[in-house]
Amino acid sequence: MADQVATNITWHEGDVTPEMRKDNMGQQGATLWLTGLSASGKSTVAMALEKMLLARGRHAYCLDGDNIRHGLNKNLGFSAEDRAENIRRIGEVTKLFADSGMISINSFISPYRVDRDNARAVHAESNIPFFEVYVACPLDEAEKRDPKGLYKKARAGEIKGFTGIDDPYEEPESAEIVLNTHEQTVEESALALLKMLEDQGIV
Amino acid sequence: MADQVATNITWHEGDVTPEMRKDNMGQQGATLWLTGLSASGKSTVAMALEKMLLARGRHAYCLDGDNIRHGLNKNLGFSAEDRAENIRRIGEVTKLFADSGMISINSFISPYRVDRDNARAVHAESNIPFFEVYVACPLDEAEKRDPKGLYKKARAGEIKGFTGIDDPYEEPESAEIVLNTHEQTVEESALALLKMLEDQGIV
Repeated sequence: MADQVATNITWHEGDVTPEMRKDNMGQQGATLWLTGLSASGKSTVAMALEKMLLARGRHAYCLDGDNIRHGLNKNLGFSAEDRAENIRRIGEVTKLFADSGMISINSFISPYRVDRDNARAVHAESNIPFFEVYVACPLDEAEKRDPKGLYKKARAGEIKGFTGIDDPYEEPESAEIVLNTHEQTVEESALALLKMLEDQGIV
Repeated sequence: MADQVATNITWHEGDVTPEMRKDNMGQQGATLWLTGLSASGKSTVAMALEKMLLARGRHAYCLDGDNIRHGLNKNLGFSAEDRAENIRRIGEVTKLFADSGMISINSFISPYRVDRDNARAVHAESNIPFFEVYVACPLDEAEKRDPKGLYKKARAGEIKGFTGIDDPYEEPESAEIVLNTHEQTVEESALALLKMLEDQGIV
């Protein structure tokens, strides 16, 4: 309790500023938004990058279907309206994570340009860095991988509205970086993202 | 790039574990859920605690009406259904923050016991520490403060369903800590929370 008085002075000066948070976390909070087809490698690259950042003493967290669809967005289905709301909520949550000083790494197919652009706009309004990462694995390669058998089911008509089969994937037009995950290893992709973060002064 | 190989080894071992995250952040992620009447002092105490934690090199972030109602929950109103959904979403988001290793400090009136208990349950399912903090300022004192003139409007019938006036506040029955903000300073309240976090081995 010896530093009580000093603390008193500190928090009477006002809110925590972005500079104070940057000092506290040792990095600039930011969002990396990985978009691409199912089985393109988004989550694998995201988790590899998370581990690389943690191994370097940086702070990162992944948002993906596993921790969003069964929690925050469990009351959303796959209608056009629900898909848009799904991405809208994720955009708002990852903005909060980035505002807190985290490197927030998102892995969602997010097939529609307008939804991704909205997420970008939410960040711009708050001056929070946003990096759109196009995980550009071609459809034939993603379909060959098909680790969960989803493409097979979509081709058989057992799943409707599947991105790349009977629902469009709108390619990013101004992604900050493109990862050709069919031509490079997971580690190479993750290192490319790490280099981008370093070059941009984020970490 | 000299540590590339070591990184490679690291991320092939599996996902980031809670222990790895605790080491990385230098603290155990947790949620502090401040509940109480409007003008009870929730946000003021929350922000004081956030600053105290940051001044000590810890990592904390506040969720409150300012960054939730205008963003994630801007499509929710004040119907019974929307109020429940408001708190449900906040419970899920603060759980993610706590899972990321942050001390996530929430300030919401959250008047209904069932909604707060649901937020607690979401944390328990994931073994993430959750502290219910009852900011127990009596109604007459909160109404005397009335910094935004909301109680006055509620008494005049200009605001309907206002907690404490014509909508109930259900007091916590098993809060981890009670703050009598009408009898102690903001700093004393924040220090009481800091001591609890230290005693519980969170920071």
